[in-house]
Amino acid sequence: MTLITSESKGVYVIAVTPFNEDGSIDSHSIDSVTDFYFEKGADGLTILGMMGEAPKLTQAEALAVTRQTLARASGKVVVVGVSAPGLAAIEELTKAVMDMGAAGVMVAPPSNLHTNEQIVAYYSQVVEALGPDVPVVLQDFPLSTTVQISIPALGQIIEACPSIVMVKHEDWPGLAKISALRQAEAQGRRRVSILCGNGGIFLPEEMLRGADGAMTGFGYPEMMVDICRLTASGDIDRARDLFDAYLPLVRYEQQPGVGLGARKHVLAKRGAIRTATQRRPGAPLAGDAIQEIETLITRLEKRLAELG
Amino acid sequence: MTLITSESKGVYVIAVTPFNEDGSIDSHSIDSVTDFYFEKGADGLTILGMMGEAPKLTQAEALAVTRQTLARASGKVVVVGVSAPGLAAIEELTKAVMDMGAAGVMVAPPSNLHTNEQIVAYYSQVVEALGPDVPVVLQDFPLSTTVQISIPALGQIIEACPSIVMVKHEDWPGLAKISALRQAEAQGRRRVSILCGNGGIFLPEEMLRGADGAMTGFGYPEMMVDICRLTASGDIDRARDLFDAYLPLVRYEQQPGVGLGARKHVLAKRGAIRTATQRRPGAPLAGDAIQEIETLITRLEKRLAELG
Amino acid sequence: MTLITSESKGVYVIAVTPFNEDGSIDSHSIDSVTDFYFEKGADGLTILGMMGEAPKLTQAEALAVTRQTLARASGKVVVVGVSAPGLAAIEELTKAVMDMGAAGVMVAPPSNLHTNEQIVAYYSQVVEALGPDVPVVLQDFPLSTTVQISIPALGQIIEACPSIVMVKHEDWPGLAKISALRQAEAQGRRRVSILCGNGGIFLPEEMLRGADGAMTGFGYPEMMVDICRLTASGDIDRARDLFDAYLPLVRYEQQPGVGLGARKHVLAKRGAIRTATQRRPGAPLAGDAIQEIETLITRLEKRLAELG
Amino acid sequence: MTLITSESKGVYVIAVTPFNEDGSIDSHSIDSVTDFYFEKGADGLTILGMMGEAPKLTQAEALAVTRQTLARASGKVVVVGVSAPGLAAIEELTKAVMDMGAAGVMVAPPSNLHTNEQIVAYYSQVVEALGPDVPVVLQDFPLSTTVQISIPALGQIIEACPSIVMVKHEDWPGLAKISALRQAEAQGRRRVSILCGNGGIFLPEEMLRGADGAMTGFGYPEMMVDICRLTASGDIDRARDLFDAYLPLVRYEQQPGVGLGARKHVLAKRGAIRTATQRRPGAPLAGDAIQEIETLITRLEKRLAELG
Repeated sequence: MTLITSESKGVYVIAVTPFNEDGSIDSHSIDSVTDFYFEKGADGLTILGMMGEAPKLTQAEALAVTRQTLARASGKVVVVGVSAPGLAAIEELTKAVMDMGAAGVMVAPPSNLHTNEQIVAYYSQVVEALGPDVPVVLQDFPLSTTVQISIPALGQIIEACPSIVMVKHEDWPGLAKISALRQAEAQGRRRVSILCGNGGIFLPEEMLRGADGAMTGFGYPEMMVDICRLTASGDIDRARDLFDAYLPLVRYEQQPGVGLGARKHVLAKRGAIRTATQRRPGAPLAGDAIQEIETLITRLEKRLAELG
Repeated sequence: MTLITSESKGVYVIAVTPFNEDGSIDSHSIDSVTDFYFEKGADGLTILGMMGEAPKLTQAEALAVTRQTLARASGKVVVVGVSAPGLAAIEELTKAVMDMGAAGVMVAPPSNLHTNEQIVAYYSQVVEALGPDVPVVLQDFPLSTTVQISIPALGQIIEACPSIVMVKHEDWPGLAKISALRQAEAQGRRRVSILCGNGGIFLPEEMLRGADGAMTGFGYPEMMVDICRLTASGDIDRARDLFDAYLPLVRYEQQPGVGLGARKHVLAKRGAIRTATQRRPGAPLAGDAIQEIETLITRLEKRLAELG
Repeated sequence: MTLITSESKGVYVIAVTPFNEDGSIDSHSIDSVTDFYFEKGADGLTILGMMGEAPKLTQAEALAVTRQTLARASGKVVVVGVSAPGLAAIEELTKAVMDMGAAGVMVAPPSNLHTNEQIVAYYSQVVEALGPDVPVVLQDFPLSTTVQISIPALGQIIEACPSIVMVKHEDWPGLAKISALRQAEAQGRRRVSILCGNGGIFLPEEMLRGADGAMTGFGYPEMMVDICRLTASGDIDRARDLFDAYLPLVRYEQQPGVGLGARKHVLAKRGAIRTATQRRPGAPLAGDAIQEIETLITRLEKRLAELG
Repeated sequence: MTLITSESKGVYVIAVTPFNEDGSIDSHSIDSVTDFYFEKGADGLTILGMMGEAPKLTQAEALAVTRQTLARASGKVVVVGVSAPGLAAIEELTKAVMDMGAAGVMVAPPSNLHTNEQIVAYYSQVVEALGPDVPVVLQDFPLSTTVQISIPALGQIIEACPSIVMVKHEDWPGLAKISALRQAEAQGRRRVSILCGNGGIFLPEEMLRGADGAMTGFGYPEMMVDICRLTASGDIDRARDLFDAYLPLVRYEQQPGVGLGARKHVLAKRGAIRTATQRRPGAPLAGDAIQEIETLITRLEKRLAELG
């Protein structure tokens, strides 16, 4: 069983959860989308995240999706989102998925946390409940959670909680936070892996600021793979050229709500999943939105061809 | 199996969940506190509410608490809180507890709802998911949920969702909302039961505005029982005299966080539960808080004796 | 010119701003309500607070109200609320009112502050902008501002900003915060004056925890004066008896929105102001609310008579 | 004096407020940036918006900036942001700027509004206070105001408030809102002008959904001018090609906080203002951010050259 560490690098795709048109889980597509992500170059997957529609699943379904994804991933790294309103549920789900072979778990802060002290205490309690052997990803996503983690508070958490080995960085704006984390490490603080979210909309800048990769979703996960590979190898201009080609669609997918519909539309069109269905209360994309996405795809393909 | 209806009246105590000092569930005290509430005159119980520390339980624990409480209540009415981030979890828990014999379920709105339309749509989806035969209590508690349900939006929900038979009213300020609900009924809208929360801190006024009783917690549940009985029988002055005697403690218990510690302290002192322990992350009461509560209890008993 | 200091004690009433029925400022009542507050034993006034309807005034009106109140107070202490979205406006208003003879200014944090660092930086900027000679009251009122100031963050502000001499304490729950502030002072931190808000609903407990008095509003300001006097002189039981008599009305006045209508109703009834008018968008009290308040007043007077 | 109407179209640039390095207003640059915006093809300006650092100005400064901009604009359309915590301040500022020759005023909802009814009532009060002759722009920007205006609530406002002639549309995601507004008009509701914000990051899609133009800021306002002109003339592909070239920088400028620094940096570099200074508490751009922007500018110019 491979676990994530503070040295983990690369692209961990936030996986969608595929549904049949009647709202049941589409297990066939769990296999196909898992294959798809790895074929496009993903280093790992993160399942049961917000964009994986995790809160819409029952606990039994969440475990079934985890079991199947882990089986299909056959040894590749799979992180599992376990955010829940209470510690007991987080602990229960974590134990279950780690026993199945997950590489770590991801925890976002609940929205009732406000002060630095509350946030630091929360992660201390989480880590104490899960035990020192479960590697934890801290999801720093204030636009969704409403919880603002300042740079000093994040530093305190890192110092107090050795098993938090990774930050899913999607503060916005957040470039300065990456630089600050790396600067503290240069001055002696232990390293954490920083994988970036927000649909990759700042990925070139993030990589150049010291991020280790991406942990986010997009209909074309090869974009993240290419940007990470090219920035790592120093071919920044090529990385930016590719990024700019994808950016109009990245931007479209980054819209809350509509964005997941767009992502699933692209994945369905590309054969990764059978239908773009979201489980209720997610609404299907309207016709004009589909048309907008199709236009963006056409232009993307043309631009990629130009870039060669 | 008795179900709650839009004619339900009386006092439904929001039950605490008792824990042993090691944080495990204290099943002995589940029985004793259930007995205590009914001995003090409760018409029903509501378990797994926010003040029942429900989010701190695993799903298995939540079901075990429900099963035991229902058994001990031996046919009396027990409502179960089933609020959860997603519909699937709400549906799953509802099915389980209704099968066990619950009288209905209570659902608070998730904090990401903002507009009237989002709130109305949410309750329509909940009710559709649960089916027409499960009586639902709408918990209207903006101080905790951050969701403000306007009087017109509440009216739309009542019209669209016949199985919502009861409102747990704890908007604050909210007296005008009770009057508006009753006025709409006088003009032909179907009736809903209105049971009031907020620790009972406006109970005399609420009863006179047309509420049907209380659904809240307090270390002395007989206070709610007496106020409801006396206002129903027209003995308003006596109701107010008693209420005023309890008010200093009601006020103390209404503090978020500290209040639950106070409530459990009183219940433990009165023998209803073995210890005042809250499951983590709830903190034990500080010594000065305990002293403040003891002073309030002493004064309460003295004042009750004066009132005869 | 008397200035507030970190040793200030007593009752500073949050003054209402009186309006004529057409919404214009009722200058006659500014004089009469100022007299009323001091006749009832106030040590000072705080004008242009949230409950003074300050945001509904133009800048010229705010200055006129200040000038008149200061003149009428003839040397007594008047603090002026100067909270505004930007530093320049705070600075401009502060300069104007201090030149007129205000004893200090009160500043609440703007709602876009979240992290400890943002809050500490904000007060540092305020204090730097106002200069070292203007005594500042920090208004800690999260229920209204949405800004949660943790005990450590408050400590950092006190250490960084010597001209913040007073905390208007209305965190809720907040008793532990008073104890923590006093404990830090016992261990060497400079003293701040702590005057309590929230309509006085925890005033006995707050005084016993170490508060220096009250800075809040209520239709019967003599309640605060008596509680502060009696707790200071050690007559705690008498203080509590009086407090308990007022508590049903204190509770009623503490309702956001409705509460100000209730307060103005009581003040008008007692002759302190000519009408209970709130400037728009404040709505007049409904008839049933007026009836509820009248009942509470009747019972209050009866109970005060009983207590002698 | 030209007023905005429900037929207004084109690009109204959200103007920056230029400051000298000591924080005082740079009046020389007010003239130069006004000229710059119109030279680049703007149809109008909107001053004293959030990105114009309006809350950092005293009232006297706000009026001085308005007077100078109106003089320099010599008859061109200038809208003035007048959002304030209270109606009296809005009314006072509106009267002043309309007397000076403003073309209309812009009002964002205060953050304490939640329900549809509160929001509709607020705009009704604003419009009543300002009178029927002042054209009003409703700023719909939930990411900043936290106020979510649903499509039905927006419709009610439009129906109740004839003097609201324009919506500054920056809900996000918000494409469906534009379509819904236009659809309601097709079914008979009066027209409103829709100018889009959010830095133009969805401008091509917004124009095709029926928007009338842009009301937002960007270091290269000619981007908005070109996109609006090209989409109006049907040259959609060329519009998209240009948009895509600017998008990496648009995205960078859209970051809250950092974005305004980026915008002022670009404007200073292009000679529109003398320095990129933001008034405190705005922080200067860090060196790595400046480098990122410079890279984006270099790539932008190269790409524009390729596109011809």
